[in-house]
Amino acid sequence: MTELEKGATVAVVDKTLNTIDRWWRTANYLSVGQIYLLNNPLLREQLTRDHVKPRLLGHWGTTPGLTFLYAHLNRAIAERNQSTIYLTGPGHGGPGLVAASYLDGTYSETYSDITEDEQGIQKLFKQFSFPGGIPSHVAPETPGSIHEGGELGYALSHAYGAAFDNPDLLVAAVVGDGEAETGPLATSWHSNKFVNPTQDGTVLPILHLNGYKIANPTVLDRISHEELEALMIGYGHKPYFFEGGYDESEDILSVHRRFAELLDEVLDEIDAIKKRAAEGDTDRPMWPMIVFRTPKGWTGPAEIDGKKTTGSWRAHQVPLANARDTEEHLNDLRAWLESYKPEELFDESGRIAEDIRSLTPPQDLRMSANPHANGGLLLKELRLPAIEDFAIDVPVPASGMTEAPRVLGQYLTEVIRRNPDNFRIFGPDETASNRLQAVFDITDKQWNAEFLGPEVDEHMARAGRVMEMLSEHQCQGWLEGYLLTGRHGLMSSYEAFIHIVDSMFNQHAKWLKVTNHIPWRRPIASLNYLLSSHVWRQDHNGFSHQDPGFIDHVVNKKAEVVRVYLPADANTLLSTYEHCLKSKQYVNVVVAGKQPAPNFLTMDQAKAHCERGLGIWEWAGTEVAGEEPDVVLAAAGDVPTLEVLAAADILRRELPDLKVRVVNVVDLMRLQDEKEHPHGLPDRDFDTIFTQNRPVIFAYHGYPWLIHRLTYRRNGHDNIHVRGYKEEGTTTTPFDMVMLNDLDRFHLVIDVIDQVPSLGAKYAGLRQKMQDARIRAREYTRINGEDIPEVRDWVWPDAANQADSGSVDATLSTGGDNE
Amino acid sequence: MTELEKGATVAVVDKTLNTIDRWWRTANYLSVGQIYLLNNPLLREQLTRDHVKPRLLGHWGTTPGLTFLYAHLNRAIAERNQSTIYLTGPGHGGPGLVAASYLDGTYSETYSDITEDEQGIQKLFKQFSFPGGIPSHVAPETPGSIHEGGELGYALSHAYGAAFDNPDLLVAAVVGDGEAETGPLATSWHSNKFVNPTQDGTVLPILHLNGYKIANPTVLDRISHEELEALMIGYGHKPYFFEGGYDESEDILSVHRRFAELLDEVLDEIDAIKKRAAEGDTDRPMWPMIVFRTPKGWTGPAEIDGKKTTGSWRAHQVPLANARDTEEHLNDLRAWLESYKPEELFDESGRIAEDIRSLTPPQDLRMSANPHANGGLLLKELRLPAIEDFAIDVPVPASGMTEAPRVLGQYLTEVIRRNPDNFRIFGPDETASNRLQAVFDITDKQWNAEFLGPEVDEHMARAGRVMEMLSEHQCQGWLEGYLLTGRHGLMSSYEAFIHIVDSMFNQHAKWLKVTNHIPWRRPIASLNYLLSSHVWRQDHNGFSHQDPGFIDHVVNKKAEVVRVYLPADANTLLSTYEHCLKSKQYVNVVVAGKQPAPNFLTMDQAKAHCERGLGIWEWAGTEVAGEEPDVVLAAAGDVPTLEVLAAADILRRELPDLKVRVVNVVDLMRLQDEKEHPHGLPDRDFDTIFTQNRPVIFAYHGYPWLIHRLTYRRNGHDNIHVRGYKEEGTTTTPFDMVMLNDLDRFHLVIDVIDQVPSLGAKYAGLRQKMQDARIRAREYTRINGEDIPEVRDWVWPDAANQADSGSVDATLSTGGDNE
Repeated sequence: MTELEKGATVAVVDKTLNTIDRWWRTANYLSVGQIYLLNNPLLREQLTRDHVKPRLLGHWGTTPGLTFLYAHLNRAIAERNQSTIYLTGPGHGGPGLVAASYLDGTYSETYSDITEDEQGIQKLFKQFSFPGGIPSHVAPETPGSIHEGGELGYALSHAYGAAFDNPDLLVAAVVGDGEAETGPLATSWHSNKFVNPTQDGTVLPILHLNGYKIANPTVLDRISHEELEALMIGYGHKPYFFEGGYDESEDILSVHRRFAELLDEVLDEIDAIKKRAAEGDTDRPMWPMIVFRTPKGWTGPAEIDGKKTTGSWRAHQVPLANARDTEEHLNDLRAWLESYKPEELFDESGRIAEDIRSLTPPQDLRMSANPHANGGLLLKELRLPAIEDFAIDVPVPASGMTEAPRVLGQYLTEVIRRNPDNFRIFGPDETASNRLQAVFDITDKQWNAEFLGPEVDEHMARAGRVMEMLSEHQCQGWLEGYLLTGRHGLMSSYEAFIHIVDSMFNQHAKWLKVTNHIPWRRPIASLNYLLSSHVWRQDHNGFSHQDPGFIDHVVNKKAEVVRVYLPADANTLLSTYEHCLKSKQYVNVVVAGKQPAPNFLTMDQAKAHCERGLGIWEWAGTEVAGEEPDVVLAAAGDVPTLEVLAAADILRRELPDLKVRVVNVVDLMRLQDEKEHPHGLPDRDFDTIFTQNRPVIFAYHGYPWLIHRLTYRRNGHDNIHVRGYKEEGTTTTPFDMVMLNDLDRFHLVIDVIDQVPSLGAKYAGLRQKMQDARIRAREYTRINGEDIPEVRDWVWPDAANQADSGSVDATLSTGGDNE
Repeated sequence: MTELEKGATVAVVDKTLNTIDRWWRTANYLSVGQIYLLNNPLLREQLTRDHVKPRLLGHWGTTPGLTFLYAHLNRAIAERNQSTIYLTGPGHGGPGLVAASYLDGTYSETYSDITEDEQGIQKLFKQFSFPGGIPSHVAPETPGSIHEGGELGYALSHAYGAAFDNPDLLVAAVVGDGEAETGPLATSWHSNKFVNPTQDGTVLPILHLNGYKIANPTVLDRISHEELEALMIGYGHKPYFFEGGYDESEDILSVHRRFAELLDEVLDEIDAIKKRAAEGDTDRPMWPMIVFRTPKGWTGPAEIDGKKTTGSWRAHQVPLANARDTEEHLNDLRAWLESYKPEELFDESGRIAEDIRSLTPPQDLRMSANPHANGGLLLKELRLPAIEDFAIDVPVPASGMTEAPRVLGQYLTEVIRRNPDNFRIFGPDETASNRLQAVFDITDKQWNAEFLGPEVDEHMARAGRVMEMLSEHQCQGWLEGYLLTGRHGLMSSYEAFIHIVDSMFNQHAKWLKVTNHIPWRRPIASLNYLLSSHVWRQDHNGFSHQDPGFIDHVVNKKAEVVRVYLPADANTLLSTYEHCLKSKQYVNVVVAGKQPAPNFLTMDQAKAHCERGLGIWEWAGTEVAGEEPDVVLAAAGDVPTLEVLAAADILRRELPDLKVRVVNVVDLMRLQDEKEHPHGLPDRDFDTIFTQNRPVIFAYHGYPWLIHRLTYRRNGHDNIHVRGYKEEGTTTTPFDMVMLNDLDRFHLVIDVIDQVPSLGAKYAGLRQKMQDARIRAREYTRINGEDIPEVRDWVWPDAANQADSGSVDATLSTGGDNE
């Protein structure tokens, strides 16, 4: 290259830098306008108080940094033809992202009333954080967003989830330095030990070090450069440091030039890493990341009311809170808006100048229009095998013993085989513990840190369909990012510890609820949980591991997005999970224990049972056709089902004339009123099953109150007596656990005696017998350390008869471990 | 020192090292015994299957590392007279800590049936993870524990919480390398930016790098030494690396010597740091930490069934799962137990050899007997000022406007002044946002990272009573550690984001519940929440910040430990909080909005109201003495109270003959049956207030179902109609928010019309008027961006009259910001 040519290149770059700066000024102007202006959007009249919104609501501080990065990414994307999505951890910088998508043209394409002229800009401004308008955060309403950033901590987990199986995608993920203090974010840096450089996309973390939160400095801004650099290296990154906006003597084009060069260097390095990996280098690369240090509220008022504002926490929200109330603030606002020189940015009609628009990449390369950020557009239906191929043979009800998730694992193996690039399983170190280990016949755990060899590194590889890190936050965040970009997956976890992600579930459920009502957002696959290490079988771990309350937490969210299933055996679990994997826009919570348990239903029966959601198990009861039963014994959950059946067996033997109906519930939402939940059973059907006036003894998996809540509007609700977990437990035997909570078979029989009016005093003998059985069981356990054989070996009579004749398919697994 | 003297010293050390090793072997033997043995505890007969427990439940893998560290700390504690507590992140290593406290003598002092002889050891072994015995984790039952470690992630937060204001305390905190992958743990390293070297104690983090989780390697074990070192430096620590147990050619005494020397070096460095700080050096020190790399399951069987076990994930739980079932495993177990040479460790009676016992520090210096680990022993009552001194003047009900938490902040200022060393406020960057900023008149936010000067670093100092980091996990963990060691505090947070610590709350509530039933555990101060940025006023943030479900989550825990308060005004909040600060062994959830709201009760009235927990506000209703009301309007929460009063005002004007009773609930648990909750109102009292058969329109702060749940057993429950948050929201005006959820005054009037049988058709006109008012309010808001003046400026008539006469103490605050 000659000197002249080099000079020419620099000239082109200078012109581009100027465009970048003009784009940035426009985006910042549009951001400030959204926060403050009701009218007079382009300052074509003298700004008055009436032009200012009556309530000033939003966040300015992070916004100019987000728009700066967006501008520069635009340039690089167009030059490199690089498909890119943009995740903003500080999602409260919503005005910046709305402005960017307006600059992209996407906003007007998506919302036709927000036109590309002065009137459109006025509407754009007014609607922001305004009644009937749009939220102040980077919400589902914002084109290009898969991450609202309202609750902080998940930017990187979401980013990596989006990158998995998208080898050509770049995910630029801005991490706020406030957000960086959260736990989930602090561990999510380690995602780089899991991402695969050839089969997955690239995440470019950008730590936005603007130094302040609501009212405090940030930790990472107040440690030495050496410590921050060490931290990023320790996290496995090669950090690039950028600082701009502090040196007032530096021309803004120089700042842009420095960042453009740094960004090119970083993107070149990413390309080089990808190239090396494609050529077979399997060493984990030190992926680049950028520390982007710029003043909070950059380009805003330096001081307000004599106090430093730009470059301080005072710029966090709405710096000129009294712009409508005081002349001084109004003047400050006018000066601030005018500092962007809007007259240079918009034409007469209010359309953004063509040279500025030229920075926008074409079509789907626009970050606000990238289809990965509207994952439903890319969603492919899963190719699912027939569940019949994995069915357990059940010659008579309650026969054989199976670990239900183990069978599900066999089914998932085939799901993985048929869907090699858009289905993953996530979990915190528990895929095998939760009995899904069959999947390791066909895939591995993806791991890109060091290997020590097959002696200890079982089922691990550089690429695989199973993602395990000991962080429920990370697993949930990865899965969310994976689903939001149009793929499928599930997460398995301990039931008690899924509460760790209560608030992440909240945010995802809220996202789904809102997107249900945004026509251009296409449906995405449901988020599926499998909670198989549940409250009743924490034999190793005890009280701290016992909490069935996630279900309660979930049902507080909108009925349109939550589903809860409690399959009682293997075939029912298979049928349930097939349904979940086919579904869209839900959160499906499936609780199914991993310990050996009897099989009750054939696959045909299981499918019919799941179709109905609940039903009478005639074979288990003693009712007489055409007559109302004396009592209904209902169960939801595997352990309660076993106790209900054992209680029904006792009643059959002890009170053969009592008409007992046994009901099993797999879809918990069927209990609710049809007006409350789309799965709700019509009242007439509910009454047919549960009766209107007979006592219902309901054995439930979780906290008993939920059943009362769900059946509150039912006719017979006063007759429903619920047993469940009442927060009693320790490390003890399975039957001792149900006894501690009065959910055991003996107590259920006592409940029947106490609740059926026609029984009563003359059955005091049976009542005493049950009491004695409880005492005997407790004593035996205390002495022997295991459950009394009468309980441990109890088998449903029909199944026992079959077993005698040798025809039961006893699939009892050998493993009894319960990590 | 002469050569001879040096040699003498070495000889002493060698003897000590031998004792340490013998202590360690004893602890390991006792740990293995607990996991496996039912009988024959000292192998004084041939080991048979019958001596092995029928169910093998526990975790071996982490245990030998924990006991190794305990042994060495014992030596150092005694030599240095250093008060120390020991927190084990991998709390599933319970057998090791039980063994250590047995070696300390503490166990037998605490549990007199576990004697220091063979019979006692047999009981010690049998009870472990056995029905009727003790949990498998480092549970409340374990002397010396303040940290169960069941749910992973909080070891360091708890440790720092314990260290605050305990300048002479050393907290040795073991972090498992599995735990280190969790989010909360990953950010908790940054606690060192907050701890003060002179006024607080020292945390010594020990990263137990044994390389494996349940079924996977750990991330931190599979990155380079350089990365791990950088990570620890980046976290602000000076790492010391130790590796032991891998080199089979190294004598164990040499391993002990190396660790003893390293520990001395580390403790010397801590002393030097403390000394420098005491001399006035305010630079943040690089506190030492230890990377302790030893094999998982160290000293256990190298291989089992031909597979590498020690030094792999296979050692995590119970390596010889079939010890009772196969001869091979039984032989392996025998060899393993014998490898510790129990015959050298116990005397004939089964008492531990005196030389081994000599390693134990004296009395309270024993880590298992340190009073800090049974914080109630050290608890001092808070010196509380009279709340009357902070009372708002309320000449007539519903007068003035006050931000209630601002008044609480004034009260807390005096609490801090009177209790300068045992009371702290914790929160994620929101103390001022939540209106407690008065406390900064007397104290500061504690910050030991860099300062930039008073222009931006307001209310920050090296020591202070307010702890803010943008991590709810960190704040909660710090507070828990602070409380568990016998101090007082509170945590303020956004209502929606307190869900981030749902699972931490679970674990703390479970700890409290268990300790309630352990006589030697002394009561500790309650954990107090203040949720003042609540669901109804997320004007800046919208839907993602709206979730009142923490209350629902809390009430699933044992009634004996949870309390929920919804004070409706400033005086009621003061009285509530005084009660909370005096209480013990509870989790108190207080929800009180931070926006200006009317004052309803004088301090005397507020105290009486809080005493009762709920009551009739006669001044607000239109009932006639001695007659049943036609309808009850009940409210719980500040926003619902305002809407109920406005509805009552409309009814008074529009239907002057209707007998309306207004009820306000401050203590939510009063609604529950007295059999369900100790605060439950007797049925007769409940009926007196709510009537047995009149319609109750209940305006509730949170999800409506909770009120149904709490009142489920009440006589009149079918007549209770609840309005609350039904998961509808966005960034909009306060009144639009209540309208979106049908909680607004107009809708409450409609509810009255619909539910009072005597009204009906002839009041269709009023009903229509209310509908019109809703439409008008909605339209006005959509156009103007603020609430309709009729609503915004509504004032309770009596208060309005007073205001006209100029006597209302209008304490409306100037700030309207709502971060």
